[in-house]
Amino acid sequence: MTRSDDARRGIRLPELASTDRSALDALLDSALVGHFALVADDGTPAILPTAVIRDGDRVLCHGSTGSRWMRRLATGVPTALAVTSYDGLVVARSAFESSIHYRSAVLFGSCTPVTGDGDGDDKARVLDLVTERLLPGRVAEVRRHTSAELAATLVLSLPIADWSLRISDDWPEDGPDDVAGPAWAGVVPLAPSWGEPLPAPDLRGGIDVPPSVRALHD
Amino acid sequence: MTRSDDARRGIRLPELASTDRSALDALLDSALVGHFALVADDGTPAILPTAVIRDGDRVLCHGSTGSRWMRRLATGVPTALAVTSYDGLVVARSAFESSIHYRSAVLFGSCTPVTGDGDGDDKARVLDLVTERLLPGRVAEVRRHTSAELAATLVLSLPIADWSLRISDDWPEDGPDDVAGPAWAGVVPLAPSWGEPLPAPDLRGGIDVPPSVRALHD
Repeated sequence: MTRSDDARRGIRLPELASTDRSALDALLDSALVGHFALVADDGTPAILPTAVIRDGDRVLCHGSTGSRWMRRLATGVPTALAVTSYDGLVVARSAFESSIHYRSAVLFGSCTPVTGDGDGDDKARVLDLVTERLLPGRVAEVRRHTSAELAATLVLSLPIADWSLRISDDWPEDGPDDVAGPAWAGVVPLAPSWGEPLPAPDLRGGIDVPPSVRALHD
Repeated sequence: MTRSDDARRGIRLPELASTDRSALDALLDSALVGHFALVADDGTPAILPTAVIRDGDRVLCHGSTGSRWMRRLATGVPTALAVTSYDGLVVARSAFESSIHYRSAVLFGSCTPVTGDGDGDDKARVLDLVTERLLPGRVAEVRRHTSAELAATLVLSLPIADWSLRISDDWPEDGPDDVAGPAWAGVVPLAPSWGEPLPAPDLRGGIDVPPSVRALHD
């Protein structure tokens, strides 16, 4: 179910609101990171940036069992998770109409820890999903998790159930006076770009850049 | 003053914490966007992604006077502003040691509205700072703000006083057994990249891409 009420989300431009689940999934599948907002014990706001991935109808994140905010999220406190992508600069003929192309999702709910008990929702399997999402093909190139590594890792799941989505992808909307004026208008796309892989200083000789890393440039 | 206590920030790797104000400024000056966490009237967490810029010892953002969360921030409620930059993928020899190069700042405090009363902290001047930050040189290319535009815009200022900063920029830290193994390790840099400017469909003939936009590719 989509919560599209403007009051909850604080939307100023309701026409940008979208209820398109496939557009939400596309954003969650392309963004590397999300920001969890939560309320601390003392009532003050806290915020946790972390890598997030989508797995069907849930969003997964992971971190150290020593992370205070991860541990608090694991108790099921209410959270708002923002996943935001900045896709371009909207250069209008006036500063006022200039803006940013973005996709902005907020998911509301509570997180549940993913345990390692092998019941089909296994922590190791989820961590492999994370690895494959960040670097497809990498799981086959590295050793398996150790039990100590699994024990040190907290994995959280947030259902995709109560969410809002805004997408700004239009051309500048200048008024007729500005359109008739001398200023340029358009859009400058912005996208993340991978640089050349840099081998670690302690990399042994004769080990080539693996297919997973090479594929980032495909 | 820097609040570097791990408990407040929820830091799991204290060695990544930085008290370097110039590193904080570099992050704030390069990131396009921040996420404000705040607490709604009903005690639930809320989150507002928005463009942020630094002006000396404060961070500025702007939005519509119709934005619910902007208006709530303007009342001076406590907020935590996260500014996060993802700078690369750390490809270790194990999934566990693999991670992300990032710079992550959180600023704690309360926002103050910037008014338009021309007292030296003028709303129009601040909006010009925003324009120049997002697209240097653009202010000279566009008309001045109208009073209606200024009236419809809420500008907020958050002091840079109580903040924490974490920077992850190291090589993979695999153990000796993994270093002796067959897997590659290194870093793949990630950076935003501007695409070719796209003219608006209603752009009149004979208006060239302006210097401000051309300079994005310099």
